[in-house]
Amino acid sequence: MKAVLEYLKTNQSRFVDELCELLRFPSVSAQPQHTPDLHACADWLVEHCRRIGLSAELCPTPGHPIMLARTPRRAGARPHFLVYGHYDVQPPEPFDLWNSPPFEPTIRGRHLIARGAADNKGQHFAHLKAVEAYLKTGTDLPCDLTFLLEGEEETGSASLTPFLRARRRELRYDAVVISDTGMPAKNLPALTYALRGCASLEVTLRGPSRDLHSGSFGGSVENPAMALCQLLAKMRDAKGRVTIPGFYEDVVAITPLERKQLRRLPGSEEGCRRFLGVPALYGEKGFTSTERTTARPTFEINGLTSGYQGEGGKTIIPAWARAKITMRLVADQQPERIMKATIAWLKQLCPRTVRLEISADHGAPPYLVEPTGAHVQAALRSLRAAFRHEPVLIREGGSIPIVSDFKRILGVDSLLLGLALPDDNAHSPNEKFDLDCFAGGQRMSALLWQELVKAE
Amino acid sequence: MKAVLEYLKTNQSRFVDELCELLRFPSVSAQPQHTPDLHACADWLVEHCRRIGLSAELCPTPGHPIMLARTPRRAGARPHFLVYGHYDVQPPEPFDLWNSPPFEPTIRGRHLIARGAADNKGQHFAHLKAVEAYLKTGTDLPCDLTFLLEGEEETGSASLTPFLRARRRELRYDAVVISDTGMPAKNLPALTYALRGCASLEVTLRGPSRDLHSGSFGGSVENPAMALCQLLAKMRDAKGRVTIPGFYEDVVAITPLERKQLRRLPGSEEGCRRFLGVPALYGEKGFTSTERTTARPTFEINGLTSGYQGEGGKTIIPAWARAKITMRLVADQQPERIMKATIAWLKQLCPRTVRLEISADHGAPPYLVEPTGAHVQAALRSLRAAFRHEPVLIREGGSIPIVSDFKRILGVDSLLLGLALPDDNAHSPNEKFDLDCFAGGQRMSALLWQELVKAE
Repeated sequence: MKAVLEYLKTNQSRFVDELCELLRFPSVSAQPQHTPDLHACADWLVEHCRRIGLSAELCPTPGHPIMLARTPRRAGARPHFLVYGHYDVQPPEPFDLWNSPPFEPTIRGRHLIARGAADNKGQHFAHLKAVEAYLKTGTDLPCDLTFLLEGEEETGSASLTPFLRARRRELRYDAVVISDTGMPAKNLPALTYALRGCASLEVTLRGPSRDLHSGSFGGSVENPAMALCQLLAKMRDAKGRVTIPGFYEDVVAITPLERKQLRRLPGSEEGCRRFLGVPALYGEKGFTSTERTTARPTFEINGLTSGYQGEGGKTIIPAWARAKITMRLVADQQPERIMKATIAWLKQLCPRTVRLEISADHGAPPYLVEPTGAHVQAALRSLRAAFRHEPVLIREGGSIPIVSDFKRILGVDSLLLGLALPDDNAHSPNEKFDLDCFAGGQRMSALLWQELVKAE
Repeated sequence: MKAVLEYLKTNQSRFVDELCELLRFPSVSAQPQHTPDLHACADWLVEHCRRIGLSAELCPTPGHPIMLARTPRRAGARPHFLVYGHYDVQPPEPFDLWNSPPFEPTIRGRHLIARGAADNKGQHFAHLKAVEAYLKTGTDLPCDLTFLLEGEEETGSASLTPFLRARRRELRYDAVVISDTGMPAKNLPALTYALRGCASLEVTLRGPSRDLHSGSFGGSVENPAMALCQLLAKMRDAKGRVTIPGFYEDVVAITPLERKQLRRLPGSEEGCRRFLGVPALYGEKGFTSTERTTARPTFEINGLTSGYQGEGGKTIIPAWARAKITMRLVADQQPERIMKATIAWLKQLCPRTVRLEISADHGAPPYLVEPTGAHVQAALRSLRAAFRHEPVLIREGGSIPIVSDFKRILGVDSLLLGLALPDDNAHSPNEKFDLDCFAGGQRMSALLWQELVKAE
């Protein structure tokens, strides 16, 4: 391992040059005119992987190609891990807010500034450099590794799910490693061990067969907008809890260990309030903001539509009223079960003076890797050694669909070892990647394979 | 009076021909291309009034002219009544739903079919024919009469208010007579003695400074759409009553006489339910539908707007949520007082996790003429004699702004003696006026002046 770490140390400047090469491809998946750039970027990656000693191939898809690259085959069964990343980037617009051109990588201090620097080229490139260090120093890799780099992450990974399904017998791994999330600070390396799931529905209440004159008929029929307000109002109680029967039944309680970890995160409630621009924070009683946004489920109205919405007034009783709703779910809530309970509750609460229509989608399950599990502990050890700081276990409030896909289709857990800092401007102008995170990520990756194999 | 009634009887056929002439003018005030038709129609009315013995003049306004026509001046002070009407009509579109062209009056049985037949040309023309009968038979009119026919009623009577204000010293009447409402059935002549008023407001709740990702932030801030639902839900209790403190304080209770009158109206609750297309009727406990829509105040949501309203979903916490609201008021609720109480109640109920913004308009007061008053009783006698059926006292759920204007500016009450039947299709294709209502209206008008003067 000493040789590997020494190799990483001495080659940093070249690594940065190579990453800059990768960042020069304007691989914007959302913009059709950049399709050739995505292909050129994928070709460059194949070439680069081959140069460092991997066998690489491009797999065509209806969209942009998926690159698969493997470490050299060895006799005998060994643990096999997948590193996932994506070479496509967000659109760079608006250009005028960039201090340097988005596809002309610029270094200022420890910042490497370019579109895609943190999201995600810099992060998966760190893993490639770690494996290069093994291969170029002739150090024995204790496991097999496959890199899967896709080109459609920023547009929804449309080709990835069918790709995984079609090859699910061949793609068998002991874990997936993904560096596409964040760490709270340079001195707080992090493993994201939980993501929230999601269930969405649209509720429509229909009253009279057409908008009615509120003078002529007001008072004699239910107003669907009022019925919707009264119905939705009942979905949350005075303590900020969702009232759907059984809603919290499968929620895994936050352990003292987790609470302790979440409390290590920087930032204050007051800072959060100011950042969001609200007069006061609000949420389920008995939990901190961080707990509320990551470890507790929610019932959110995303949109309301009813009656007249233009300038001035219109004296009508609307014929219908509609709400778009998403619930964020946490382990072990199951979207199907929650959806069923939600629909039953809405039906029970809805007055018989209006007709209730519900359309629901399939939802996404929440994700949780046991923070005390062997793989997580191994990853924490590698983070600690690489960054020389005690790593923190974090949860994310959003969903990452690919993580669910890996679990659902390949039956494998993901280790989310994000290297992006909160101020890296992912998806925004002046995206950057910190070169210390880049180097730390390489060391973490190099150590990770040792630790993971020990944990097997 | 015998001569007057005889004159009316023998001249019906000519009256219908003359009304058809009036109906041929496409005096659509909403459509600028019809401005010449409105002027031609007004000219025709001046000419016609002069022919029957009135002194008539057109008063220019920034919009369409107002016609004033008076019975011949007599020495000495006599009661003076104003007959209000309007010669403009609703747009006829959609043309393809008319069985005969809207401006080619067609007679089928007792129906005279044309745009404006019931609303309002046929109705004010009945009053003109009654005064013609007095003047042409040399019968002594016991009072002075002025006809005020405007050309902008269907577009909001924009010129009428300033006209009344400017001439308020000159326009002094003992009562206004308006035939522009309806009667429930041919055998149920009616006097509308009450109208509801109105107060409108727009409520906006502002939360975060921008739409937030419901995954990253859901659970830690109030959702303005949910806050709005919970706020509005509290505005009405389980008995269907508005919860605003003091809301019912000034409401004049329905008297046994009124209840009895309202019960005489045709139509069943089930018929009403089917007509409105609702699964069940709904309203304040303890009142019938007719009472609820005419004699009780309401709190109606006219529109809801928040967050994402397009196809599919968007996982956001909306930055704001808005509701448009109108309250229908009944005597003696005062819009200003109700608005003040409403705003105070909203402020009291609104959680401090969102910012409350309210914009309110000035509102319109409710209207009530004492049904036991001398003028009303006089009008009922004339209805009874003219239609040979016991008239009914009715209330309307909507507002008629001109009635408030006459009260507010000229300080005079209006007697609403509508001649339109419920199936007259006012504002709809195939508008008609029943020739029996036309003739009955003439008789009623002829008798009315005698009865009103007796009641003075």
